[in-house]
Amino acid sequence: MSRQKIAIDMDEVMADALSRHLSLYNAEFRTALTPDDLQGRMLGETVPEEHRERVRAFAYEIGFFRDLPVMPGCREVIRDLQQRYDIFITTAAMEFPNSFPEKYDWLMEHLPFIPWTHLVFCGDKSIIAADYLIDDHVRNFKGFRGEGILYTAPHNIHVTGFRRVADWAEVRRMFLD
Amino acid sequence: MSRQKIAIDMDEVMADALSRHLSLYNAEFRTALTPDDLQGRMLGETVPEEHRERVRAFAYEIGFFRDLPVMPGCREVIRDLQQRYDIFITTAAMEFPNSFPEKYDWLMEHLPFIPWTHLVFCGDKSIIAADYLIDDHVRNFKGFRGEGILYTAPHNIHVTGFRRVADWAEVRRMFLD
Repeated sequence: MSRQKIAIDMDEVMADALSRHLSLYNAEFRTALTPDDLQGRMLGETVPEEHRERVRAFAYEIGFFRDLPVMPGCREVIRDLQQRYDIFITTAAMEFPNSFPEKYDWLMEHLPFIPWTHLVFCGDKSIIAADYLIDDHVRNFKGFRGEGILYTAPHNIHVTGFRRVADWAEVRRMFLD
Repeated sequence: MSRQKIAIDMDEVMADALSRHLSLYNAEFRTALTPDDLQGRMLGETVPEEHRERVRAFAYEIGFFRDLPVMPGCREVIRDLQQRYDIFITTAAMEFPNSFPEKYDWLMEHLPFIPWTHLVFCGDKSIIAADYLIDDHVRNFKGFRGEGILYTAPHNIHVTGFRRVADWAEVRRMFLD
């Protein structure tokens, strides 16, 4: 029998893009927003209307994705998951073409044990064939034939209807215990 | 009912990488190889052993993928297929990280009517969820749950066991007639 496949999103699941977004925003607008200010909303929905374009532009800047912090436990748990599952990284990189080399280099640096054959830069994730998709955006579960597992992020805390993991320790418990 | 999905490979299906490969090889080694010399073999399997590394290196060079010729009829047929099917471009770009921006720019130039949401840079195509995969490499049909449609290329002419298309006119006949 072939092993089950788990597809894993990058931003807000493996890589902490929100902290980078917040620090760029706070530096430019002299604010002190924290994740607690974003309960149920994206940063772009939280800031004044006139800042939205600027917030969106951050992720298009060269270097945005290259040095994002790795989520705690991510590396170790993915490594252990690989013993029992086929692990694919599935990130909607197509929205940000500048991110291609940065995301690739980030993965090679932090998770070199995932082969290039198991990396996927895509847009609409309905094209992904896997048993599970761990992602922070429910929009990515639309049309996905496996089970969507919602990785908790400030913007999705009010979302219901999916099994949820709050961190990588919970991913381990769900798939390996 | 949702529309059927067709996943389409790039090199040797949409983009004529072989002609580029042959012209680079012939220029460097003062040979006159043509596609007819590659019946049932890849270029790397056709040239003398000591040239193989060099042949492999061509595809890693900056610019290799950017200006590849579009296969005749490709644009028009894909545009017509979009009326009836969901079309995704699925290319094993992960093997050649230098190709990311080149493949993206090539697609934006030649097929701007395919949205970024429907572009996929991957490795192992068993991760692709589609009803059909049009590809010149049977290795990409391994683990793919839909039907693999073999796009004829010199290297695959002896392969049996799959429905085949020789060109984009045949793709049109198979899916639109």
